[in-house]
Amino acid sequence: MSLLIVGTVAFDTIETPHGKVEKVIGGAGTYAGWAASYLHSDIRLVSIIGGDWPKSELQRMNARGIDTEGIKIVEDKKSFYWSGRYLENLIERETLITDLNVLADFDPILPDSYRNSEFILLGNLTPAIQSSVIDQLESKPKLILLDTMNFWIDIAKDELIDVIRRVDLLSINDEEARMLSGEHNLVKAAEKIMKLGPRFLIIKKGEHGALLFGDDHMFFAPALPLNNIVDPTGAGDTFAGGLMGYLANQSEINYEHVKQGLVYGAAMGSFCVEDFSLEKIQNINSSEIDARIKAIQKLTTVDTAKL
Amino acid sequence: MSLLIVGTVAFDTIETPHGKVEKVIGGAGTYAGWAASYLHSDIRLVSIIGGDWPKSELQRMNARGIDTEGIKIVEDKKSFYWSGRYLENLIERETLITDLNVLADFDPILPDSYRNSEFILLGNLTPAIQSSVIDQLESKPKLILLDTMNFWIDIAKDELIDVIRRVDLLSINDEEARMLSGEHNLVKAAEKIMKLGPRFLIIKKGEHGALLFGDDHMFFAPALPLNNIVDPTGAGDTFAGGLMGYLANQSEINYEHVKQGLVYGAAMGSFCVEDFSLEKIQNINSSEIDARIKAIQKLTTVDTAKL
Repeated sequence: MSLLIVGTVAFDTIETPHGKVEKVIGGAGTYAGWAASYLHSDIRLVSIIGGDWPKSELQRMNARGIDTEGIKIVEDKKSFYWSGRYLENLIERETLITDLNVLADFDPILPDSYRNSEFILLGNLTPAIQSSVIDQLESKPKLILLDTMNFWIDIAKDELIDVIRRVDLLSINDEEARMLSGEHNLVKAAEKIMKLGPRFLIIKKGEHGALLFGDDHMFFAPALPLNNIVDPTGAGDTFAGGLMGYLANQSEINYEHVKQGLVYGAAMGSFCVEDFSLEKIQNINSSEIDARIKAIQKLTTVDTAKL
Repeated sequence: MSLLIVGTVAFDTIETPHGKVEKVIGGAGTYAGWAASYLHSDIRLVSIIGGDWPKSELQRMNARGIDTEGIKIVEDKKSFYWSGRYLENLIERETLITDLNVLADFDPILPDSYRNSEFILLGNLTPAIQSSVIDQLESKPKLILLDTMNFWIDIAKDELIDVIRRVDLLSINDEEARMLSGEHNLVKAAEKIMKLGPRFLIIKKGEHGALLFGDDHMFFAPALPLNNIVDPTGAGDTFAGGLMGYLANQSEINYEHVKQGLVYGAAMGSFCVEDFSLEKIQNINSSEIDARIKAIQKLTTVDTAKL
């Protein structure tokens, strides 16, 4: 089934304790699209780029089954550019530069062929843009996932809540869940947030893993402890792309499938952090993915007969 | 088999966002002993208290199969007293008062009947005391667990490392693992620490759960997300007590058993935080424990056939 991804396609300059890369490809849409492409083949990407974003990278996406008709190219402008530096703990980071460039005028118009998409991944963008994408859909999708960030909770909480009411799955991190709900306790925060409407809520806990709430159940997908974390940029987007790529293959959306999707998301996210930019995520194969799924499973498997 | 626990038996005054309790019973030995008593019946507790610690609480322990012959009572002195205040996140805390009192002179002499104990839980005390307890053992135990804290890594690292070399299982938190190893990455930290000698290493991650390293494997026991966390004091000790209570029932110590023990430890720790002091941990039953074990298991269970 068709998976529509709306998210940034951009350049990043990133410094971590492991090194620095300048003006490399990045963006939530890029990470999510690549991650989903290992699990699903009918992917549509909606974004905006300047004339400076490499056409060869668009072709690489096309070769992986990612339709890029929905990426608007503004030849005489520059692509969205972000530069940041991570601290030693690889969690905290400071933003050095945010040049919106073409993103300042992003008002996505879905190509006609995208309007019947069945799975929608709304990457972190203004709530107004996220809402406008939902407005343009002609049929009710099977599942809409919404990603957002603390910035929008701060400055556009009402608009954000309006969008949250329209989606099936909200994906935010623990601090955002606390901000949005006003509850420090994550179980209470989840209860409050789910009252807004989404059937499923994912609370991402970075290096620890991700919690899933829904259908009166709770599930935890641990992050695989890795001995080589180079750059966490894009891990959340890769997680979302893996999750949605998996779900887009399912004929029915139920709690069990979303749980399985979280494990795929965790596996894809674990590759992402092992190198800068999309270096790793562009160079994996299905047996590596299978091995990682098994490693994540094994991480929490106990002989229950004995308990 | 016999389980020897060495740890403080004390008073606490604790303030959390949920309230304040004054001069309630506490101490690592108390928490660990009670937790272990739900899973095992031959428990010996070594500690020191003043004349002010309630004899009725000693009797309650005896009634649960905890031998307290090893608790030295100094009638004319006061018990160890700690007072602290937790911040809103229930993780960070500030110590307001630490009155060592009788603990300043603690130099445990094991009763003869304790010297052949098969399982040893060395709670957080000076490395010199921990070492002295091992010296007094007459036969090689099946397993020694060592707990410690950042304070000893700071001021007595060499002595601490000497004790670590003598134990089978080291239990520390993530920040302590980083301090001890000089590695931020937990997988690398674990590799370094295990080279010191212990067969198993547990890295506790508080509200997130605990990682187990050993026999070239890695296991993660998640903490059960709870909607009612009142006071985290003693959670780590209760975790250790539950783990060791479970292991003391096993005829063989292997990786699978330690994994299972972690799940029991996580279950016992989850009760501890639901009320102040030992209020909850003194009032649970085996069906509640079974239900919690199942809840922890369910938290990470996915239909693997589909993955």
